[in-house]
Amino acid sequence: MEMDEQMMREALKEAHTAKQEGEVPIGAVIACKGRIIAKGHNMTERLCDPTAHAEMIALTAATEALGGKYLQDCTIYVTVEPCPMCAAALAWAQIGTIVYGADDPKRGYTQFTPSLLHPKTEVRKGVNAEECSRIVTEFFASKRKA
Amino acid sequence: MEMDEQMMREALKEAHTAKQEGEVPIGAVIACKGRIIAKGHNMTERLCDPTAHAEMIALTAATEALGGKYLQDCTIYVTVEPCPMCAAALAWAQIGTIVYGADDPKRGYTQFTPSLLHPKTEVRKGVNAEECSRIVTEFFASKRKA
Repeated sequence: MEMDEQMMREALKEAHTAKQEGEVPIGAVIACKGRIIAKGHNMTERLCDPTAHAEMIALTAATEALGGKYLQDCTIYVTVEPCPMCAAALAWAQIGTIVYGADDPKRGYTQFTPSLLHPKTEVRKGVNAEECSRIVTEFFASKRKA
Repeated sequence: MEMDEQMMREALKEAHTAKQEGEVPIGAVIACKGRIIAKGHNMTERLCDPTAHAEMIALTAATEALGGKYLQDCTIYVTVEPCPMCAAALAWAQIGTIVYGADDPKRGYTQFTPSLLHPKTEVRKGVNAEECSRIVTEFFASKRKA
């Protein structure tokens, strides 16, 4: 879907912002009826908070924007497969749809059973996957060299 | 351990505060070397944020208090078995020990495989379990009657 790629571009912009700030370059946006209502990127270093993942920041911003705890009509676009914490947080929010770019075979939520997601949440993946993956790989490669 | 029961009393006080505020009555404290450095109780309603669980609030407060992302030398005391989101958050923080009161056979983290916890985290459970469980059961019973 063209919309998925367009929104993933916005999530990638967030990932690039994270990179500039020395954070693991993962970004997310949350859209409701085609309009972005919240953005977030990894801020674990700056906030000294291991829970400050892109998805958590976007999720909290989205519920604040909508004034409600639930995001059934929303879609989160995130550059990398969510970790279990973020997946379970999105389940509590009953998010309508999750669209992610790159798989995370090491820490991704899909490795856990039973599913960590809300039963009604739809998932699409692989959107701009190569670019979403490359920015993270390059980040860690440059860290190892440093 | 006497310390566990004493600390769980403090977590229960947090749960009672949550109850007074109309929140699901779950509380948590985080201790480092026998001293409480952070407290939290469920605030999902007040903050309109489905991630505002007792453990998440205490965890963020603890990392802020210590000025670091990791809690290897800390113990979290929480009245109810953490959900997958909180368990995975505590894994990111590499928490030293988790002590919880009541089991949560419906939404607890122990139902998921592989383990959501950090491999070095120790777990003790069943501390003041009856009281930790009763406050939640009574809360939902009174909600259904209302």
